[in-house]
Amino acid sequence: MSAASTARRRRGADELDVVAFERGSITSYAACGLPYYIGDEVESAESLIARSPEQHRANGIDVRLRHEVLGIDPGAGRIRVRDLDAGREHDEPYDRLLIATGAAPLRPQLPGIDLAGVFGLHTIPDALALRARLDGAESPARLRAVVVGGGYIGIEMVEALLARGCTVTLIHRGEQPMPTLDADMGERVAAALRALGVELRSDTDATGFVAGPDGRVAAVATESSEVPADVVVLGLGIRPRSELARDAGIAIGAGSGGITTDSSMATSAEGIWAAGDCVETHHRITGRPVFVALGTHANKQGRVAGINLSGGSARFPGVVGTAITKVASTEIARTGLDEREAATAGFAAVAATIEGSTRAGYYPAAAPIAIKVVAERGTGQLLGAQIVGGPGSGKRIDAVAVALWNDMTVDDFAQLDLAYAPPFSPVWDPLLIAARRVADLV
Amino acid sequence: MSAASTARRRRGADELDVVAFERGSITSYAACGLPYYIGDEVESAESLIARSPEQHRANGIDVRLRHEVLGIDPGAGRIRVRDLDAGREHDEPYDRLLIATGAAPLRPQLPGIDLAGVFGLHTIPDALALRARLDGAESPARLRAVVVGGGYIGIEMVEALLARGCTVTLIHRGEQPMPTLDADMGERVAAALRALGVELRSDTDATGFVAGPDGRVAAVATESSEVPADVVVLGLGIRPRSELARDAGIAIGAGSGGITTDSSMATSAEGIWAAGDCVETHHRITGRPVFVALGTHANKQGRVAGINLSGGSARFPGVVGTAITKVASTEIARTGLDEREAATAGFAAVAATIEGSTRAGYYPAAAPIAIKVVAERGTGQLLGAQIVGGPGSGKRIDAVAVALWNDMTVDDFAQLDLAYAPPFSPVWDPLLIAARRVADLV
Repeated sequence: MSAASTARRRRGADELDVVAFERGSITSYAACGLPYYIGDEVESAESLIARSPEQHRANGIDVRLRHEVLGIDPGAGRIRVRDLDAGREHDEPYDRLLIATGAAPLRPQLPGIDLAGVFGLHTIPDALALRARLDGAESPARLRAVVVGGGYIGIEMVEALLARGCTVTLIHRGEQPMPTLDADMGERVAAALRALGVELRSDTDATGFVAGPDGRVAAVATESSEVPADVVVLGLGIRPRSELARDAGIAIGAGSGGITTDSSMATSAEGIWAAGDCVETHHRITGRPVFVALGTHANKQGRVAGINLSGGSARFPGVVGTAITKVASTEIARTGLDEREAATAGFAAVAATIEGSTRAGYYPAAAPIAIKVVAERGTGQLLGAQIVGGPGSGKRIDAVAVALWNDMTVDDFAQLDLAYAPPFSPVWDPLLIAARRVADLV
Repeated sequence: MSAASTARRRRGADELDVVAFERGSITSYAACGLPYYIGDEVESAESLIARSPEQHRANGIDVRLRHEVLGIDPGAGRIRVRDLDAGREHDEPYDRLLIATGAAPLRPQLPGIDLAGVFGLHTIPDALALRARLDGAESPARLRAVVVGGGYIGIEMVEALLARGCTVTLIHRGEQPMPTLDADMGERVAAALRALGVELRSDTDATGFVAGPDGRVAAVATESSEVPADVVVLGLGIRPRSELARDAGIAIGAGSGGITTDSSMATSAEGIWAAGDCVETHHRITGRPVFVALGTHANKQGRVAGINLSGGSARFPGVVGTAITKVASTEIARTGLDEREAATAGFAAVAATIEGSTRAGYYPAAAPIAIKVVAERGTGQLLGAQIVGGPGSGKRIDAVAVALWNDMTVDDFAQLDLAYAPPFSPVWDPLLIAARRVADLV
């Protein structure tokens, strides 16, 4: 809808018809906000809808809800559409097409995965169902919740369920939660979770879901035991929804499964663009394609596609792998490559971790912050950073993201003119200290 | 002391004697923390001392307190020192010398400026005196405080005096407080101050101080009126203390009055370095020297000087003019050039201001943030940014500071991979929106 809105703003109704087909009934919702609705930090699901179908229509976009696109014929310039309510199909011609099919949550075919009480969290209906379960419980504070998956959604769901008073167990596959951090930084996240009373089951796969006498889920099965559960939330990751493009003969990234585009967001098929969680993206540090599903990229890509398909010229220059989340007062952020990714990408990497303070040590509410910086041995090129710390820690990653964008060395980074005043930073910002530490090892 | 400590760490006692002369009795104190001690956010003045003389001595630095350096003889390689307590003078030879004489608060010779109740705030003794006045008052909450000067110290003292319950009037020279912001952004600071109950006297100079019957200050005189005052705090800016260097024939910047150094922090005199608030600094955007007294620069320069004077090699690459402060929950930050500075430096500038949100709009405690971005017309080169907003606003300036360091354009900036999650940012970080807005005007 970002592309549609951009195109609509650029060209009048006499020049361009903009038609949007949506299988569901909701447009432009903030999927990233769903955990906060579950946690009752956001009062209504409606507030997560940035623009309703009616608002889009008022802006001159012909939104057709409950219309599923079944196929694309790039040669003929038409799509096959099914009106789900009327039960009818028809062909719709296009001059220019955008594919924005998003991503699908991974939902392995484990025994019992469809039991009542096992929830995903990808759409507003998903969230309403989980809210109904929590709100409908006699005492939500007594519910035993099990979250399966220790990535962003998993961590955010742990926070939400804790906020609702549930007892929470986190089952995750790796040595530490947050697999997009190195294990030593993930261990800090694990410590924060444990301090919040979360039971962690690391190096553990869910192997199935066990029903209770009422037919609802009663436990999560693992290889070694059963974990009692009144509510299960799955956060097992997502995959690009690229089948429609693949079936139309459009190039798909072999590794990522996302639709391949150039920097204008054009696909391999003439007149067809793609944007959002269904595409693979250029990683500026590795130079390789990567699948990163994140609302901010989707919005930027949508804008770029909307400009290009309405006759303008814009490009999406790629990502450096920045991400952020939090659990209670612990902020977690990363950008660039972690040590494992750096090795995979062929960099000889060197890393250092420092522990510092978010503010001047004497200033109230100065919180601990740990920063790990990764650099290339020899050249000192900054490769990435990871942050785990108290309030004021996370958004510090942006300075590193900008530095990565500009191929800075850690030695140069350590000299940066970052903002200093006691309520905001020690006299040496911990980022500078971390960069200096690595620079001394390079 | 940063230089002394760096040199000490790099070279053993068999290689290097490190002697430090200090006119006062305190070393390594955080001047930037003084307002927070006044405001009772920092409990003791001692906690502002990063390293005591004893600690420096334990680290192998020969600290001589109450020793004033009266003159430098670069040709002979010696300084003239006065032991203030013994009342004796002697010559001290050196092989390498660092001048770190800091800055002096501006204290115009206005009638009554030496009255009891008129305070500066530059040293720990200054702070102790002001604290004593506030703590000694029968009811500090009833005191009428007048702050003269609307810069960083002035604003921070307003916050501190409000925290102590005083009634606060701010007398400042410009149209708006915070002269390092453009007036339209300063107006936002003024609005925040007014909302806190501060009375603002803009476009106003203090012309003198009026004594009451008890001989203490009772009012601040201005051209048009007298403002009743139980306590007056001066925040009129500072100037580099460069007399010692000047008298020794060392080059001083004509405009700034600060000691001229190269990027190694070497002065014009062989074997003499200078660092901290007494020097002028290279501004990376204008390419011109500038006087910026800030603890973070002083520390970095001290480190660089300490490396170089102990036989190593390091350089201080200059500043981009980043600064930050806050008053109550309003955060204020700037970097690079504002519109006026851009014009002075000869840039044809274009600017835009946006109002956004620190977090996703639906997330609790999302706060307003205003961002002004300045760019060069035609090229789109980023020249600077100013931020005024709620919690989570100020440190965003760091991303701009890194971008300035790397000569980014606003068009490139608007594409950056900044961290997004609802508790930290809207899906388009307000910085990106502001950069995009300017890019569209360039």
